[in-house]
Amino acid sequence: MQTPEQVREYARSHDMATTAGHARGFMQANLLAVPQEYAFDFLLFAQRNPKPCPIVGVLEAGQYTSELLPGGDIRTDIPAYRVFENGEHTATLADATSYYTPDMVSFLIGCSFTFETALQDNGIEVAHIAQQRNVPMFKTTIPTTPAGVFSGPMVVSMRPIPAAQVSDAVRITSRYPSVHGAPVHVGDPAAIGIENLNRPDFGDPGEVPEGCLPVFWACGVTPQAIVMESKPRLAITHAPGQMLVTNARDQDFLIP
Amino acid sequence: MQTPEQVREYARSHDMATTAGHARGFMQANLLAVPQEYAFDFLLFAQRNPKPCPIVGVLEAGQYTSELLPGGDIRTDIPAYRVFENGEHTATLADATSYYTPDMVSFLIGCSFTFETALQDNGIEVAHIAQQRNVPMFKTTIPTTPAGVFSGPMVVSMRPIPAAQVSDAVRITSRYPSVHGAPVHVGDPAAIGIENLNRPDFGDPGEVPEGCLPVFWACGVTPQAIVMESKPRLAITHAPGQMLVTNARDQDFLIP
Repeated sequence: MQTPEQVREYARSHDMATTAGHARGFMQANLLAVPQEYAFDFLLFAQRNPKPCPIVGVLEAGQYTSELLPGGDIRTDIPAYRVFENGEHTATLADATSYYTPDMVSFLIGCSFTFETALQDNGIEVAHIAQQRNVPMFKTTIPTTPAGVFSGPMVVSMRPIPAAQVSDAVRITSRYPSVHGAPVHVGDPAAIGIENLNRPDFGDPGEVPEGCLPVFWACGVTPQAIVMESKPRLAITHAPGQMLVTNARDQDFLIP
Repeated sequence: MQTPEQVREYARSHDMATTAGHARGFMQANLLAVPQEYAFDFLLFAQRNPKPCPIVGVLEAGQYTSELLPGGDIRTDIPAYRVFENGEHTATLADATSYYTPDMVSFLIGCSFTFETALQDNGIEVAHIAQQRNVPMFKTTIPTTPAGVFSGPMVVSMRPIPAAQVSDAVRITSRYPSVHGAPVHVGDPAAIGIENLNRPDFGDPGEVPEGCLPVFWACGVTPQAIVMESKPRLAITHAPGQMLVTNARDQDFLIP
């Protein structure tokens, strides 16, 4: 069993296609870092959109480590970073240090990997894990609630769930409100603006086998869609599926 | 049955000792308003201290109404306001308009009145309601997690609960994480720095009958203790027990 420290150290100097399945039982987090001038607006955006943007930690300007990554460095410990300048994705990097000016505030956002462990532990198969693929993610027509300069569409992740287990999947994930919580939509993809499940905006294509319904959860990649739309002068994120592995335990996010 | 609109309109022009018991089933909220220069620090403080400071709404600078108080005005619709200047409580007012400069950001914070309704509905008597008194509130030695300029002690509210119902009280309130959630302490007041249950720092004295334990929940008056310690140049709050009655329903805060 790998520790979170071991995964972070490995990620510092190696490529990793995804962090899924590593350091099982420990929380993985999405990253959005923006200059201080945007920090209040984004924290307010997250407060108004807790399902796609559940904040699990904030590193203030000039702070690069915290109790979520003891001994770690937020600028290097994620396998791959994306840089957005004025809303354009301009670079993908293994080390974001050169872009991390001292005024950058880092927001860590809960990730559905946490509730996937709970789904598996309760006998619900998670298709993309079984297939060793990345979860399919889609921009939708579900609007977020704007705050300051930030606005844009919600991104969702999709998992096919057998009809008889949809109710359990809702119940189980609703107990993790800090990591996206209950689904935002069950069934018809077209109703939320998704034209083709085989053409995700992020991640790998997902199939919905006979007898399953597509179930959609709010996704921590939403901030990247928001950045593309809202165009702050600089933003640094993780690459989808390549997360920060933290020292917090998934179990800490279980309510009640 | 009063509507939230009726209570807010009444509060605009009348004294009300407490809003407890009014517009039952609708969420009541604590207020902390600070100038924009403190807004990121306080929102971050709340994110780091979700039990005492669960944010249920934010009115941006220059915004005085929202979907939580449709047709209302945050500057007038609370029965009594407290003004703090450099940490000193300098005024208590029925109308805060003269202090509400256009740069004030208003934070609405969940209130334990929400889970008290749930406790009563589940057969647990809430002593201070039965006695028509305000809940006793105490500053403790439990530290909060600092953020920017804000730091200080957690304030808790105390309710005596029969030993056989403590477990139910924990379980029921844990399902309301946005309105303080599960207790932070059960039993011995001295262990969290409370010397005398008959001398609360806010609210009315509370007795603990034979066979009951004192049970302590994180309290939305915590921001007032934080303001006294952290001394921002200006802060406006509600007066303890005299809350904003919102149009949100208590039931909306039930998880799962």
